[in-house]
Amino acid sequence: MNPRIVEVRKDILKKNDELARALRERFRALGVFVVSLVSSPGAGKTALLERTLTETQKRWRVAALVGDLQTDNDARRLAASGAPVRQITTGTVCHLDAEMVSAALDDWDLTSLDVLFIENVGNLVCPASYDLGEALRVVLMSVTEGEDKPLKYPTIFNSSDLAVITKIDLAEAVGFDRAAARQAIDRVRPGLEVIEVSSRSGAAFGDWLARLETERQARATGYLLAGP
Amino acid sequence: MNPRIVEVRKDILKKNDELARALRERFRALGVFVVSLVSSPGAGKTALLERTLTETQKRWRVAALVGDLQTDNDARRLAASGAPVRQITTGTVCHLDAEMVSAALDDWDLTSLDVLFIENVGNLVCPASYDLGEALRVVLMSVTEGEDKPLKYPTIFNSSDLAVITKIDLAEAVGFDRAAARQAIDRVRPGLEVIEVSSRSGAAFGDWLARLETERQARATGYLLAGP
Repeated sequence: MNPRIVEVRKDILKKNDELARALRERFRALGVFVVSLVSSPGAGKTALLERTLTETQKRWRVAALVGDLQTDNDARRLAASGAPVRQITTGTVCHLDAEMVSAALDDWDLTSLDVLFIENVGNLVCPASYDLGEALRVVLMSVTEGEDKPLKYPTIFNSSDLAVITKIDLAEAVGFDRAAARQAIDRVRPGLEVIEVSSRSGAAFGDWLARLETERQARATGYLLAGP
Repeated sequence: MNPRIVEVRKDILKKNDELARALRERFRALGVFVVSLVSSPGAGKTALLERTLTETQKRWRVAALVGDLQTDNDARRLAASGAPVRQITTGTVCHLDAEMVSAALDDWDLTSLDVLFIENVGNLVCPASYDLGEALRVVLMSVTEGEDKPLKYPTIFNSSDLAVITKIDLAEAVGFDRAAARQAIDRVRPGLEVIEVSSRSGAAFGDWLARLETERQARATGYLLAGP
């Protein structure tokens, strides 16, 4: 790679890290639990989020930011849940960055929220390098993608806090090898917790929601302990 | 985006285009039909290529170049077909470029080949901008990814010469909406030919191979017409 590109890229990432740190502080101070979702295109981020927004609206005040290259298909699907949803159109940029998130939240009253979801652009490579200030990064992989994805895209798994295997209602039809998938995840990120769900059938969806609640509460308690 | 990045990016793309043009000339002069495959991770590039290499070895002298961030899983899978296979490890780079292809072919006797396949890194965004000198760019999307992928990643569909819908043996299980998928493709690239296959069951695989042969022959005739 051109050394000039590498240098400019380092600057960009450094600037992004600083912005992300400021965002994280702001979210923490306001008590908003921010969860980002990353995956390849079609792994089911929007389907997971659709069901999550619908099912959690009774207990949390939730909202979503959705990154997409061009269309607002995902934002419209999510808005049908009734939760506030905003779209970030990235054009030709293959990932969200902290500046885009910050700009999208500019006039949004975050004190009215308990949980904010950020759906990244579908891409297993580039989003790995951009911190968005999230408290929890969740990487999704579907049973239809092949069990070796973590080995082939290690950075995105390494930089995530939780892995969700999606579309488990199709596991049998595609001959999904659960042990191989878990082994692959464990090789690139030993100890990373893995949850398996189907957003379509709702199978094990409670596990995912319970885990979110645990993470949220852990941070909420953290805020109190760290408070004045 | 930082204007400096945009400028450097333009330089890089210009340099890539020049290299790709030289590669294309070289392939044409040697009579090698070069086909690149692009798709999101897990859409089935390797499975398609595995079966293609196996089934075409009797009629063509075939080989493959495989781009991957880290592992040589795909290269090993493809090498089992008996065809010559080379791996390009891209590290953190999310796409192949003409320079990587050129370097990988450096000491390869291309006159011994009829068809060379290039499997790009799994990514629906970044590979769109990098010409590799291929004669035919094929974009894959699986029935499990969602029918609106072409609308969300228009550039990769726009820059391709053929679309292949994969995993059609799962169409019913996932409730694949064929008309919606074809409509989405037609909206971003009117008239793009679409082939549906299953690399697992072999369904309609003959259509794919026949199309490759047609394209190859059209070019071979073109070489003769354009010859001295």
